Amino acid sequence: MTRARPLAPEDGAADPQPDIALAMRLFAELRLRTGAGRGITRASYGLGEQIAHDMVRREARRLGLDCRIDAACNLYMTLRGRNAGPAVVIGSHLDSVPMGGNFDGAAGVLAGLAVLAGYRARGVVPPRDVTVMAIRAEESTWFGASYIGSRAAFGRLAAAELDGVLRAGDRVALGRAIDAAGGDTTALRAGAGLNPEDIAAFIEPHIEQGPVLVTRGRPVGIVTGIRGSFRHRHAVCTGAYAHSGATPREVRQDAVMAVARLAVRLDDTWQRLASEGHDLTVTFGQMMTEAGEAAFSKVAGRVEFSVDIRSQSHATLDLMRAELRAAVAQTEADCRVRFDLGAETASAPALMDRQIIADLADIAQTQGAGAEVMPCGAGHDAAVFAQMGVPTGMLFIRNRNGSHNPDEAMEIDDFAVAARILSAFCLQDHPAGP
Amino acid sequence: MTRARPLAPEDGAADPQPDIALAMRLFAELRLRTGAGRGITRASYGLGEQIAHDMVRREARRLGLDCRIDAACNLYMTLRGRNAGPAVVIGSHLDSVPMGGNFDGAAGVLAGLAVLAGYRARGVVPPRDVTVMAIRAEESTWFGASYIGSRAAFGRLAAAELDGVLRAGDRVALGRAIDAAGGDTTALRAGAGLNPEDIAAFIEPHIEQGPVLVTRGRPVGIVTGIRGSFRHRHAVCTGAYAHSGATPREVRQDAVMAVARLAVRLDDTWQRLASEGHDLTVTFGQMMTEAGEAAFSKVAGRVEFSVDIRSQSHATLDLMRAELRAAVAQTEADCRVRFDLGAETASAPALMDRQIIADLADIAQTQGAGAEVMPCGAGHDAAVFAQMGVPTGMLFIRNRNGSHNPDEAMEIDDFAVAARILSAFCLQDHPAGP
Repeated sequence: MTRARPLAPEDGAADPQPDIALAMRLFAELRLRTGAGRGITRASYGLGEQIAHDMVRREARRLGLDCRIDAACNLYMTLRGRNAGPAVVIGSHLDSVPMGGNFDGAAGVLAGLAVLAGYRARGVVPPRDVTVMAIRAEESTWFGASYIGSRAAFGRLAAAELDGVLRAGDRVALGRAIDAAGGDTTALRAGAGLNPEDIAAFIEPHIEQGPVLVTRGRPVGIVTGIRGSFRHRHAVCTGAYAHSGATPREVRQDAVMAVARLAVRLDDTWQRLASEGHDLTVTFGQMMTEAGEAAFSKVAGRVEFSVDIRSQSHATLDLMRAELRAAVAQTEADCRVRFDLGAETASAPALMDRQIIADLADIAQTQGAGAEVMPCGAGHDAAVFAQMGVPTGMLFIRNRNGSHNPDEAMEIDDFAVAARILSAFCLQDHPAGP
Repeated sequence: MTRARPLAPEDGAADPQPDIALAMRLFAELRLRTGAGRGITRASYGLGEQIAHDMVRREARRLGLDCRIDAACNLYMTLRGRNAGPAVVIGSHLDSVPMGGNFDGAAGVLAGLAVLAGYRARGVVPPRDVTVMAIRAEESTWFGASYIGSRAAFGRLAAAELDGVLRAGDRVALGRAIDAAGGDTTALRAGAGLNPEDIAAFIEPHIEQGPVLVTRGRPVGIVTGIRGSFRHRHAVCTGAYAHSGATPREVRQDAVMAVARLAVRLDDTWQRLASEGHDLTVTFGQMMTEAGEAAFSKVAGRVEFSVDIRSQSHATLDLMRAELRAAVAQTEADCRVRFDLGAETASAPALMDRQIIADLADIAQTQGAGAEVMPCGAGHDAAVFAQMGVPTGMLFIRNRNGSHNPDEAMEIDDFAVAARILSAFCLQDHPAGP
């Protein structure tokens, strides 16, 4: 991919401002109509998500955008550009976790709408089609599967998922939920979908789910890649219960001490690999002795725990698999215990397009917006687009208190910084897709 | 204390054999009459304990022993010796934990009875009075307090305990339970009790509650001291929940990793101090992330845990208090978390009498019985006698599968080895008490 051509004066009115007021109205309406108590709930293919889709489609029509819905009920809202060819797509999801926050997902869609509303207000015609895509069912909490909408958009949803995957709570099968929302599972089963070559660039604006931008004092982040992961959600260490005062060190089979040593070993490995430049996180999120058996006066005979390891690099993930195996073997030998890590679940890393990263950074610098270039540790629809070969980027918006909870807190000024960067990006004449 | 005079030929028939068959009959009767399902239950001052006391008193009377019951219903069964002066006392308890094993406690009382029955069968008159003491209420599980019977025997039971301490389950106050068993709480409140100077030696035979004798292949153990302890039963580490993939290492406040590092630090300290000759155990028996909050994809924000540290040495316990404080401070600084260790509960160590240790070891060697000289990690009535200034010893009997469970497994041959050592010990002419 060659460098994007700078915006020429004849491309339209310089510096059209995104319509932040529109976005603020829509955020308020979303909170009002999909909130319950402190949190908000927009179930995948459920009531809250449908309300959000109906709202943004209403606004898109009001703005005169072309609206299209695909077989999985993803919504595409397009402003036609001067030239034919691949479109620039700004997309994110509109579903949420139960009792989540108002910004996770929705901020990306509303940023896209604010950009197109700004173009409309000034009569700006972008060089290419610009499509805002409202994606369905990104949150895995509902159907236990990630990226349903974006995978379906490319015709990559497995038939087994349509039939076999049930929504948490009401146990409705995914296929039935899609059909009930007005989708077409027959088409989905046929595998029809987007052609990656029709997309010049996919950009997902999204609130950051970690504390990096807050810590560094930056309003926005430009993502280098989405970390892949491997996880052992249900690992067990088995030792032997024994009297805490009467059991000598050299015959103990202490499951707590064994898991503690395993965790510290892998944490030390993280520190070493990070200092060598590896992108990595290592998390033991759960660790539990047995409620009925463990006691303060007993050596612990069993500990359940989880391990979650993430990196932008396939090679680093493979290296960590080997490190985990070695640490388990060493700890088993040292502590006379057995580990059963259980099943591994994994996701592949997805690198963002280097040209898009550079373009976004250039624009941010030109606009005087402090942008952090950073990895993304959570999964996003952008990973699917990148894996399909679409040149992909992500723009993070500063956010306090993490996400997936009612306390997520994005400032509208930071949202506006992201929208202005997006607005300029879409006016560049991006070369064709992959 | 000077060395015990060796047994002279005129002291009685040489080598009277303890009556192991009697002990086996009594073990069988105890199992039959105090068993329920796989386990046995002899509640302190409850039905099972009373059955056991009635049984051993019946046997003591049959053997012609002098029987006496004190104000706390401890039972003293005495064979008169040739000489006046302080007695040798063989004692242990007859209560058990709920669903416990048949040997914890009872083995010590039955070993004493077997010894005296052996003397009676051969007409042996020991040099001093030998008393078998069946002690009440040793297990803290019932009244939440340890060594009730032995403390009461010395007039050291607090009035507040008599009135304020309730039995688990039926909520009967300790004083009421003692009176109901035939005791005299008025006398207990007056503080009357044994004079330590009337006891030349107290020996508690008891099954080992750890695996040392099984591991070392020895039938019996000679205890050097009973470990004291300090514990934090309800310690908490508070960090901050955060996204596992999106939270960089340098801002994490990972409660799991912090507790793991604290545990490993103290385990390393244990290893170092043990290599320098300190007697010590370090146990983190419980470690729990929050069931409702922790997840495999979150950095853990809170961990509850327990710490139990034991040693025969006051100085080592004090040293470990300082090591724990230092490790907590270091881990708080390294991991950006806060520790609240909660209340400390503690028990004092009790060293066994060096002359008694030497005498028991000499006898074991003479009899060709392999005896391990070892610390005791669990609490026992012997600690009370030692703390009162009585020259005290403990004789461990090999036992598989720990204690306080139905699977404890003492072999009668090992019991017989212990009884033979006891029998010889009581025929030595022990000098007066402290």
